[in-house]
Amino acid sequence: MIDVGIIGSSGYTGGELIRLLVNHKYTNIEICTSRKFAGQKVSDVHKHLKGFINLEFEDISPRDLKNRCDVIFLAVPHGTSMNIVPDLLDEYTKVIDLSADYRINSQTFENLYGIEHSDKRKVVYGLPEIHPEVSEKNLVANPGCYSTGAILSASPLANSGLIDSIIFDSKSGITGAGVNPTQTSHYPNMAENVQPYKLTSHRHYAEMFQELSMMDESLININFTPHVIPSIRGILTTAHIFTNRQVSTEEVKSIYAEYYKDNPFVRIIDGIPSLSTVRGSNFCDIGFEIDVNNNRVVVVSAIDNLVKGAAGQAIQNMNLMCGFNETEGIWFSGITP
Amino acid sequence: MIDVGIIGSSGYTGGELIRLLVNHKYTNIEICTSRKFAGQKVSDVHKHLKGFINLEFEDISPRDLKNRCDVIFLAVPHGTSMNIVPDLLDEYTKVIDLSADYRINSQTFENLYGIEHSDKRKVVYGLPEIHPEVSEKNLVANPGCYSTGAILSASPLANSGLIDSIIFDSKSGITGAGVNPTQTSHYPNMAENVQPYKLTSHRHYAEMFQELSMMDESLININFTPHVIPSIRGILTTAHIFTNRQVSTEEVKSIYAEYYKDNPFVRIIDGIPSLSTVRGSNFCDIGFEIDVNNNRVVVVSAIDNLVKGAAGQAIQNMNLMCGFNETEGIWFSGITP
Amino acid sequence: MIDVGIIGSSGYTGGELIRLLVNHKYTNIEICTSRKFAGQKVSDVHKHLKGFINLEFEDISPRDLKNRCDVIFLAVPHGTSMNIVPDLLDEYTKVIDLSADYRINSQTFENLYGIEHSDKRKVVYGLPEIHPEVSEKNLVANPGCYSTGAILSASPLANSGLIDSIIFDSKSGITGAGVNPTQTSHYPNMAENVQPYKLTSHRHYAEMFQELSMMDESLININFTPHVIPSIRGILTTAHIFTNRQVSTEEVKSIYAEYYKDNPFVRIIDGIPSLSTVRGSNFCDIGFEIDVNNNRVVVVSAIDNLVKGAAGQAIQNMNLMCGFNETEGIWFSGITP
Amino acid sequence: MIDVGIIGSSGYTGGELIRLLVNHKYTNIEICTSRKFAGQKVSDVHKHLKGFINLEFEDISPRDLKNRCDVIFLAVPHGTSMNIVPDLLDEYTKVIDLSADYRINSQTFENLYGIEHSDKRKVVYGLPEIHPEVSEKNLVANPGCYSTGAILSASPLANSGLIDSIIFDSKSGITGAGVNPTQTSHYPNMAENVQPYKLTSHRHYAEMFQELSMMDESLININFTPHVIPSIRGILTTAHIFTNRQVSTEEVKSIYAEYYKDNPFVRIIDGIPSLSTVRGSNFCDIGFEIDVNNNRVVVVSAIDNLVKGAAGQAIQNMNLMCGFNETEGIWFSGITP
Repeated sequence: MIDVGIIGSSGYTGGELIRLLVNHKYTNIEICTSRKFAGQKVSDVHKHLKGFINLEFEDISPRDLKNRCDVIFLAVPHGTSMNIVPDLLDEYTKVIDLSADYRINSQTFENLYGIEHSDKRKVVYGLPEIHPEVSEKNLVANPGCYSTGAILSASPLANSGLIDSIIFDSKSGITGAGVNPTQTSHYPNMAENVQPYKLTSHRHYAEMFQELSMMDESLININFTPHVIPSIRGILTTAHIFTNRQVSTEEVKSIYAEYYKDNPFVRIIDGIPSLSTVRGSNFCDIGFEIDVNNNRVVVVSAIDNLVKGAAGQAIQNMNLMCGFNETEGIWFSGITP
Repeated sequence: MIDVGIIGSSGYTGGELIRLLVNHKYTNIEICTSRKFAGQKVSDVHKHLKGFINLEFEDISPRDLKNRCDVIFLAVPHGTSMNIVPDLLDEYTKVIDLSADYRINSQTFENLYGIEHSDKRKVVYGLPEIHPEVSEKNLVANPGCYSTGAILSASPLANSGLIDSIIFDSKSGITGAGVNPTQTSHYPNMAENVQPYKLTSHRHYAEMFQELSMMDESLININFTPHVIPSIRGILTTAHIFTNRQVSTEEVKSIYAEYYKDNPFVRIIDGIPSLSTVRGSNFCDIGFEIDVNNNRVVVVSAIDNLVKGAAGQAIQNMNLMCGFNETEGIWFSGITP
Repeated sequence: MIDVGIIGSSGYTGGELIRLLVNHKYTNIEICTSRKFAGQKVSDVHKHLKGFINLEFEDISPRDLKNRCDVIFLAVPHGTSMNIVPDLLDEYTKVIDLSADYRINSQTFENLYGIEHSDKRKVVYGLPEIHPEVSEKNLVANPGCYSTGAILSASPLANSGLIDSIIFDSKSGITGAGVNPTQTSHYPNMAENVQPYKLTSHRHYAEMFQELSMMDESLININFTPHVIPSIRGILTTAHIFTNRQVSTEEVKSIYAEYYKDNPFVRIIDGIPSLSTVRGSNFCDIGFEIDVNNNRVVVVSAIDNLVKGAAGQAIQNMNLMCGFNETEGIWFSGITP
Repeated sequence: MIDVGIIGSSGYTGGELIRLLVNHKYTNIEICTSRKFAGQKVSDVHKHLKGFINLEFEDISPRDLKNRCDVIFLAVPHGTSMNIVPDLLDEYTKVIDLSADYRINSQTFENLYGIEHSDKRKVVYGLPEIHPEVSEKNLVANPGCYSTGAILSASPLANSGLIDSIIFDSKSGITGAGVNPTQTSHYPNMAENVQPYKLTSHRHYAEMFQELSMMDESLININFTPHVIPSIRGILTTAHIFTNRQVSTEEVKSIYAEYYKDNPFVRIIDGIPSLSTVRGSNFCDIGFEIDVNNNRVVVVSAIDNLVKGAAGQAIQNMNLMCGFNETEGIWFSGITP
C-alpha cells in the first residue's frame, strides 16, 4: 500500500484522480491539497465522492507532503510545478506532473507559456505507449490531453516513416477548459454549437511536434487546430495524414496492430471511433480509412480527456513507475450509453 | 465464483449488467442471450465492452440456461418473463427479473399491461432498502426506474404516517425508453426540449401506490407525472409531499437519516440533488426543503436510471440473495463531471 | 414610426428586444444603453445582429433618453427601474419595465427582494391575455418568465372558480439565469442534468399568487418549484391542479378555448406541448390531461422564456399601448427542429 | 403575389420552406405535397406552424402542380427530381430542386448515387454568391449543405489561384440526416458525442471539387471529411488551406471582402465564427487565421444547414429568379442565444 498525495486537487483532474484512486487496490490517498478550499471536506467540493473519501483539503508545504507520501501527483497550473518538483524529488518519492512544465524542453516552454523555466532538467514524456521507460523514472511529465489523442493516432505511421504531412483537427469536450465558468463554457454559448479556437497556435502543438518528429526527423509539416464541442468529456481527433507513398488498408492495419500490440489501453477498431465508447475510461480507440486518390489516410482517435487525457494516464504512469500491473485500478470499460 | 446468465442482453439494461458484472469479484458471465444478435460477438453490439467480454450472444432455451447458471437476470420485454421464470426456478437457481411481470399483483398487471398473467405467484418487490427480505428469496422482481426514485424519496415520511398527499413530478433521461430510435429519442426532437408524457397514466404508478400505501394504508392520494429531458441517463424526482401536520427541517432530516441508516446506497445530502453526482453509480441522493405555509415538503431524489434504476439494483439484489457484501461490484462513485 | 430606447441592452433580454424590433414595421431603435459596453458597437456584443443594427451602446441619463424616445424598455436589474421610471414618465413617453419592480405590490416586493421601494404607484401587470387594459396605460410591468407560463396555464380554471390547489413544477432553460457564467450555467454542470432550486421560495411565486388569487380569492393553496434543464431557451410548466369537483375533458377544453378565444399567442393544442414548437416565438402552447380519480387536471404550458417570457411579451405590450396590431413584429412561428 | 408549391414538404427542408415562405411578402403557398401524409393538416405534422398554414398535404401529379403554381420547390429524395422536373418546366414555371439530381454532371451523379440519370441537361449550381446567373434561369439546382459551407469558405482563395491543397473538416448538426430516427440520431448515441463518418467518400465532395476546380483548374488536391455533432442545426467547416505562396492577414482579408462585397448573406468577421450566431438564419459567417510557418490559412465558415444550407438558399434563389430583392423574406438575424 502506497501513500499518495494530490497537489491541486479541487479541479476536474484532481477530482478524477481521487475518483479513480479510491478504488485502486494498492493506494491510500493521504493528502489532497487546495489553497482555496483548505479546511473543507473534499466531498463537499467533489460531491459525487461522498462516502468515498473522508479527508479535508489541506494547504501544506511540499516538504511535509514528501514526508507523508510515496507518490505525488501535481494537478496545478502551468508554471507552478517547476517551483515545487525540485523540493519533492528524492530517492523515496515518485512524482507525476500533470502540468505542462516538464513536457517540452524548457526553451520551447518559455516561448509558448511566457514563463521563465527555473528547472531545466530533462523529463520523460509520460505517454507510456510511446515511452515505456517511464517505468524506470521517478519524475514523469504527464502529456496534454490533445497531445495524447493526436500522438497516439499518428505514431505508428510516423514511426514507419510514411508521413509527409499531418493536419490534426481535434474536437474536445469543454471540461478541458477547467472547472471555472467562462463565456465559452456558459451553457447558452456551448450547447448546440461548435467553437474552433487558436486555429494555428495552440500550445499542445509543441508536444505533438516534439514526439512525432522524434520518430521521423523529416516529419515537420504538422498542423493542429482545436475545437470545443457540446460534450462534457472526450477528445476526438481527426488526423488527416498525407503519406509519402500509396498505402493499403491491410498495410496500415497491420502497422497499427503491431505498434500497439503490447498496449492494453489502445484499441484498434474496425469502424470509426466516437466519444461514447471511451467515456469515463482510459482507452484510446483508433480507426481509419484510406483515400487512395490523394494518398491520404484519415485516422480517428477517441479518448476521455479527463482519463486517458489526464488522470487515468497519470495512474497508468504510476502503475508502471511503482511496478504494479499497468491496468491496476483503471481497467474498466467506458460508460455507454 | 458463480455463473451468471443474462437473458435479453443486447439492450441498455443488458449492456449495463455486463459492464458491471465483468468487474464483480465473484461472478463469471456464462451466457448472454439475444435472439436478434445470436452468433454475434457481444462486444460488436456493446462496443464499449471490447476487451472485457469474449462471448457471443446465444439463443438458448431456459432449461439449458438453468443448467449452466447459478444466477439468471431477465432483461426482457414485459409479458415475457412470466413464461420463462417457472422453467428457471429450482433450488439451485436464483432469478432476478428486471421486467414488470412480478412487480405488482397479477390483477393489477393485467389491467395495466393488457396481458394475461400466466404465473400468479407472489414475488418480493426488489427494492432492498424497503424489502431487506430479498436476501432470503430465489426470485426477485426488480423495481421500475421511476418507482425506485419515487418510492425512495417518500418512504420515510410515508412510513411515519405523515403524508396526506403526494405529487411525484419526475424527469428522466431518454435511455429509459430503450435502445431503439423513436421520434421521441430523435436528437432534433429531444435536445433543447423537455417532453411530458402519460400525464396521469404511467404504469410505474401502480408500483408507487402498492409500496407506499403498504406503509400507510390511509395514504391513497398519490399522483405521478413523468417527463423526458435531454439527458442520456438519470431520473430526478421532485416529490411534492403535503403532510398532515406541520413538520420541521430537523424532524424530517432525522426521519430520513434514521430510516436509511443501514443503506449504503442512499445518501441524504444537505443541498439539492442533481443527476450529475449519481451518473453511472448505484446511489440515490436525497435532499429536501420545507414550505411551512402549505405543509409541503419538497423532497428531491436523483438516481441513474440504468444503475440504481435497473442493472445496479439488480446486482445489489443478487449480492443480497447470494450472501455477498451488498456493495460488491457496485461500490464506485458517479462520474462527475 | 416610433423611436425606441432600450435601457440595459447588453444582456439576453436586451439582445432579444433588438433582434425582434429591427424587423418591426413601425419602430426605429434610437438608443441602446449599457454602462459596461458604452462606446462599443452593439453588434460586437450581440454578434448575431451584425448587419442589423449600427448603433453603439450609450450611457445616458433618463432625461436625455426621454427626449429622444417615444417608447422605452427597461431591461435592468431588479431595484433599478424604480429609480429611473419616475423620470421617464410623461404624457409623451411609454415605458415597459421588464424588471420585477412594478409587478407586485411594493410591500411584497420589499419583503422578497430586500430592497426598499421608492416608487409605490400601482402598475398594471403586463400579461395582456389577463390584463387587456395595458392598452390604456403608459407604464406596464412586464411579467416574470416563470409567472407567464404558470399563470397562463391555470387562469381559465382559476377564473372558473374550479381550483382547490395547484402545484406548479416548472422546467426552465438556463438563459433565464442571464448572460453571466456561473457554476450552474457551466456546461459540464448543466449538460445531462436537471437542477431544482429554491424548492419552496422562488420570488416569481408572488406574481402567480397575486394574479390567480385575484381571479378567485378562495384560491390560496398555490405552490411553485422551479428547475433548470439542459436547454438554452424555454419554460415548460407542469401545473398539477386539484379541482374542487370532478371535471371532464370536454368541459376543460371549452373553458380554455373560450377564455383565450381572442388571444392570438395562446394555442390550445390536442396533445402535450413541448419546448420545441415554441422556440424563438411568442407563443404559449397549452395542453392537458385529466386524472378523474384524484380530481387532478395536469395542464402543461410551454413558452420561450426570452420571447413570451420577456422581450416578445414586452413588444406585445408595446403594440397594444401604441395602438398597433397586437401581433406586429412578433408574428412568426417557432424554429423547429 | 406568386403561387408556390412544395413537393415533399413533410421533412425538415419542407418544414423550413414553409416556415420561411409564410412570412414572405410576395408568395402564397398553394400546395404542399406528401404521399405519406396526404389528407392530413400540414400543421399536424409541423406543429410549430399551427396558425400559419391551413393547407392539408396533397398527393398530386406534377402536371396539376404546374397548373396551380408559379414556382415549385422539390424537397424529394435523390433520384426523384429527374423524373419530375421535365414535366414541370415550361415558360411559366420556375423550379428549384433541393435534391442532388442536377447539382453535378450526370456522369458523376451516376457514379456516386448509383442511379441512372434520365435527364442530362446542364443546370446552374444554385450558390448565388458564386453563380449570380441563377437570376436568368428557370431551373436551379440548390447546393448540398456541406458544399455550401465548404465552397463559400474557400472560393475567394481558389478564385485568386492561391490554393495548393485543401482539407475540409466539417461538423454538422444532426438534422442534416433528416427527419427519420436512426441509431446515429438516437439521443443516447448523439448527445455528448461527435461521430465522423464517410471519412473519405461523402458525396457532397463532388460538388466542392466541381465548383472549386472550375475557378482554378490546377486545384485538384481537395479533401473532405464530415462529422455529426450534438447540435440540431448548423454546419461549421474548418478549411485547412495550404497556399502556394505566403500570404498575409491583410491580403486574405481584402480578398474575401472584395469577393463577397455584393453578397448580403456572407459576413466576414474579425473573430472565429460559431454556429450560435447563424442559427435559424441565412447567413454564412466566415473568419480565418494564418499559420505562416506552413503556408496554411485556416478558414472557418458557419451556416445553418436548414437555411443557408437548404431552404433559405432556395428562397434566395427564388428571389433572384423572380426579380425580388435577394433578401426578401429571409432578412432576419440568427437566434442567439
